[in-house]
Amino acid sequence: MQTLFVELGERRYPIFIGHTLDASSLLAPYIKAKQVMIVTNTTVAALYLEKYTLQFEQLGKSVATCILPDGEKYKDFGHLHLIFDALLQAGFNRDCTIVALGGGVIGDMAGYAAASFQRGVNFIQIPTTLLSQVDSSVGGKTGINHPLGKNMIGAFKQPEAVIADMAVLDTLPPRELSAGMAEVIKYALLCDAEFLLWLEQNMSKLMAGDADLLAQAVYRCCAHKARIVANDETEKGERALLNLGHTFGHAIESYLGYGTWLHGEAVATGMVMAAELSARQGWIDTVDVQRIQQIILAANLPIVSPAIPLEQFLNYMSHDKKVLDGQLRLILLKQLGKAVITNEFDQNALIAAIQAHQQAA
Amino acid sequence: MQTLFVELGERRYPIFIGHTLDASSLLAPYIKAKQVMIVTNTTVAALYLEKYTLQFEQLGKSVATCILPDGEKYKDFGHLHLIFDALLQAGFNRDCTIVALGGGVIGDMAGYAAASFQRGVNFIQIPTTLLSQVDSSVGGKTGINHPLGKNMIGAFKQPEAVIADMAVLDTLPPRELSAGMAEVIKYALLCDAEFLLWLEQNMSKLMAGDADLLAQAVYRCCAHKARIVANDETEKGERALLNLGHTFGHAIESYLGYGTWLHGEAVATGMVMAAELSARQGWIDTVDVQRIQQIILAANLPIVSPAIPLEQFLNYMSHDKKVLDGQLRLILLKQLGKAVITNEFDQNALIAAIQAHQQAA
Ligand SMILES: NC(=O)c1ccc[n+]([C@@H]2O[C@H](COP(=O)([O-])OP(=O)(O)OC[C@H]3O[C@@H](n4cnc5c(N)ncnc54)[C@H](O)[C@@H]3O)[C@@H](O)[C@H]2O)c1
Ligand SMILES: NC(=O)c1ccc[n+]([C@@H]2O[C@H](COP(=O)([O-])OP(=O)(O)OC[C@H]3O[C@@H](n4cnc5c(N)ncnc54)[C@H](O)[C@@H]3O)[C@@H](O)[C@H]2O)c1
Ligand SMILES: [Zn+2]
Ligand SMILES: [Zn+2]
Repeated sequence: MQTLFVELGERRYPIFIGHTLDASSLLAPYIKAKQVMIVTNTTVAALYLEKYTLQFEQLGKSVATCILPDGEKYKDFGHLHLIFDALLQAGFNRDCTIVALGGGVIGDMAGYAAASFQRGVNFIQIPTTLLSQVDSSVGGKTGINHPLGKNMIGAFKQPEAVIADMAVLDTLPPRELSAGMAEVIKYALLCDAEFLLWLEQNMSKLMAGDADLLAQAVYRCCAHKARIVANDETEKGERALLNLGHTFGHAIESYLGYGTWLHGEAVATGMVMAAELSARQGWIDTVDVQRIQQIILAANLPIVSPAIPLEQFLNYMSHDKKVLDGQLRLILLKQLGKAVITNEFDQNALIAAIQAHQQAA
Repeated sequence: MQTLFVELGERRYPIFIGHTLDASSLLAPYIKAKQVMIVTNTTVAALYLEKYTLQFEQLGKSVATCILPDGEKYKDFGHLHLIFDALLQAGFNRDCTIVALGGGVIGDMAGYAAASFQRGVNFIQIPTTLLSQVDSSVGGKTGINHPLGKNMIGAFKQPEAVIADMAVLDTLPPRELSAGMAEVIKYALLCDAEFLLWLEQNMSKLMAGDADLLAQAVYRCCAHKARIVANDETEKGERALLNLGHTFGHAIESYLGYGTWLHGEAVATGMVMAAELSARQGWIDTVDVQRIQQIILAANLPIVSPAIPLEQFLNYMSHDKKVLDGQLRLILLKQLGKAVITNEFDQNALIAAIQAHQQAA
């Protein structure tokens, strides 16, 4: 097991990364009182709820559970309210601890509930998808969707501790593993060329679920995110680099309707487009773009989007939050392992980059 | 006009206190972008919405409004959602500013919406009741009710600025003015004997709406609360003193059903009971209790609760949050202007104090 500490200024919290971790002993110092509410969904509950309930009961905790339906479409107000109902029906007070047991959807909902219940109670994350292990464990973002926009309502809420256990990834559907791997590759491309090399050497084992290698990858991604977030708390600068591939990906997701492609799939193709544009700007080589396509294919991710009318694609790109003053700013690559945020790119190169990675209409 | 700055560690915010204040010039430095959403209720909108809309428009802001129904019973999830609907329908982004124009109910809802929309946007308070001017302007508490408990869901959210304009109190129903005055008297009793003297000398003018004197009282209360809150951010110590009269009052409110008596009315009678118990402990004199009753009567507030069966009264008291480890702790008076939190009081004295200030059954 490895432990990564995320520094928050006044305090810090650990991310425990390993295989078949003993939540009981690891979390003992981080749960201050008796009341523990595990928030999870039907899928994850069937697999892991009993195990974790037992581990908390071993600590002498009184454990209540709130089992939500499975799916991004339930990341809404009505289902958030079910968490509050469960907390109050169980008589929970402000000393309680809320545990998120699930992927990013559960993490976002349970985290926002923890931020809001009694104006803030303790929060522990047990992310059970690769995506949530590398992306939701750091940064403190929580929230829910509104019919008029994704993640529109939420809070910054830091956990007391995070358990990233590779054992739970065994049951993850392969498509979800791939989607998480897109974010892993993202970190390599934006700031860690050595990690890219490592991923190229180990991708087949990673995709086969090698727990040791997965743990190393998760550690490296969380460490990068922790550093980037700490350097840029206001989200004006370096943190934007974490959106590599996301503006292109957002256009794909929006056009297809959310949920058709997984977020990670859209980001994967988006990164290819960003790389293509970077190459057309003369910043990276064509062989670099090929390397990126190869690693993405090796993770069973798409490198070509469906045919989307150009105007619509551009519209969706610029409706994204990453537009400043009407000037589209993109995360592009100056070299492999070095991303920049810039609006200095050729419009025709942008169009060519998109079209080069779309299916013919 | 007087300006009180509330210190928050990294930053501070002003409370502008005066009569017929020019929100336009005062707030100009505190609204960073164009989008302003005024949240208010039907009652206050009819009186003041046009005036404030104009003042924000003078600043070149584009003003949207969200007008909620009037009443504590609407301080819930469904009506909170209406604020988010209004924000998103108006196309508001994370640079927007939310303005609470109303009493404590509107302040709590708009503040929680500001804490949550896009994970936090700017917030400005224009409290329009005496209670919200002296109590909600400082401390950053916001939130909504849940069917199973009051103020159960919320956030700490500090405003950018507060405008406490005595002009708006002209239209306040007299009963609401009295209810706010209960909290004003509370500050005098718990920490400021000189202020008690001042209140005794000026209560009739205050109740007649003398704007100059009201402004002085509001300033003094906000200054006290700011100091107390700053000394005790974790809410474990001194801040509890702000609950003088509240545990007794809570029993009255709970027994009668929330909304029968106003909060301030219950607190007023609660302070009399706390004083009575303090006298029976030998800490203050009987004449002190009489002084307290007199100032409360002068503010047109009740000093006697309806008949409530003793067991029920005690039960409601100890269901309050101010119970630690099953030991009932109360805020009592060591002298006029000096409150303490203690569980060292005689149980029979407690019972006698309650019964001494109840109507005969
Ligand atoms: N807060 C943040 O910083 C942050 C970062 C990235 C993404 N997110 C959010 O996270 C969500 C996406 O997260 P996600 O990709 O984890 O999706 P998800 O939570 O929907 O999980 C994907 C699927 O895998 C299932 N699952 C989870 N763990 C499993 C396991 N161990 N075995 C078998 N099945 C399992 C889930 O039930 C679900 O069906 C989005 O809502 C996104 O907005 C938040
Ligand atoms: N956040 C905090 O720190 C804090 C502190 C104290 C109370 N509160 C909350 O505040 C609420 C009570 O606040 P309140 O006493 O202001 O009640 P309120 O907001 O319900 O206002 C009382 C009544 O006065 C009306 N009103 C308001 N301003 C008016 C004006 N200028 N002229 C005429 N009518 C006017 C309102 O429409 C309402 O009918 C409770 O929900 C309580 O939980 C919060
Ligand atoms: Zn992503
Ligand atoms: Zn009060």
